[in-house]
Amino acid sequence: MNFKIRCAAKEDCKDISRMIMDLAIYEKMPDQVKISHEELECDGFCQNPFFECLVAEVPEEHKSNEGFTVIGYALYFYTYSTWKGRAVYLEDLYVMSEFRGNGIGTALLSKVAEIGKKKQCVRLQLSVLNWNTPSRDFYAAKGAQDLTVTEGWHAIRFDGQNLDNLANEAPKD
Amino acid sequence: MNFKIRCAAKEDCKDISRMIMDLAIYEKMPDQVKISHEELECDGFCQNPFFECLVAEVPEEHKSNEGFTVIGYALYFYTYSTWKGRAVYLEDLYVMSEFRGNGIGTALLSKVAEIGKKKQCVRLQLSVLNWNTPSRDFYAAKGAQDLTVTEGWHAIRFDGQNLDNLANEAPKD
Repeated sequence: MNFKIRCAAKEDCKDISRMIMDLAIYEKMPDQVKISHEELECDGFCQNPFFECLVAEVPEEHKSNEGFTVIGYALYFYTYSTWKGRAVYLEDLYVMSEFRGNGIGTALLSKVAEIGKKKQCVRLQLSVLNWNTPSRDFYAAKGAQDLTVTEGWHAIRFDGQNLDNLANEAPKD
Repeated sequence: MNFKIRCAAKEDCKDISRMIMDLAIYEKMPDQVKISHEELECDGFCQNPFFECLVAEVPEEHKSNEGFTVIGYALYFYTYSTWKGRAVYLEDLYVMSEFRGNGIGTALLSKVAEIGKKKQCVRLQLSVLNWNTPSRDFYAAKGAQDLTVTEGWHAIRFDGQNLDNLANEAPKD
């Protein structure tokens, strides 16, 4: 299938926002999505953006059943390992179901790897859900290591009231 | 104990580098540390830094047995959730063993939470090792959620040859 991977523009945020919801539905947590396309525009296309994004686009003649031509995205940002240095973190990788099996997911993923390498990143990291064996198998087949299994890393989060409480404990300057 | 939390300066990178190694020894992976203080200076104190860092400092009269006054650090950066928005990620939190039990770790952690809140971050995330129950208990006591346990998130990594292979698969523009 003919498709193109390109950097997302501000104008793509409505499409990205639509696919963020699609992905959350797939991950069985659609009620968790609180982000609007206006917030994506602000956070991703400001002077010091919080993320970068690639989109996959098909020509008009291959548009989706619902009429979309932007049919996949990869949203990522840069992180840092105090052991190894620069890294890139892939927050979301998504291709609309009717376009899967055409190498679009691999193209998005490998493009993020290439962009990371150009920035001297030595790692590409991401998170997957335990039950999501198609994704876990996809990454494993490409050589990724599951650090939760091999090294026992757990993801820990503060949010809501717990985060507020913590911030309120901060020593005053 | 009298101590001060302040933003790290470029000149602190030697101290930070020393404590990065201390922490890796505690985490039983000292051979994993490949980062020099020169790289920290470059990656953290350039125009678009890959991380920010706080240090904890004690007065000269309370210096460590080996003569150090910079005795703890918290290294963090900003990430992004496509469900919730801006987030802060705490890569490392460390206090030298002889200074523990004085609230310095909590002060560093809560300061990062406060800085994150000021940037409209709605989450503070971090990773801990499965066997590291003192740390897991420390964060749980402060209200953090273990996402690996509650939601089944796994950390996945590409690096070395696997990352190179992936990058080489990227579609050419």
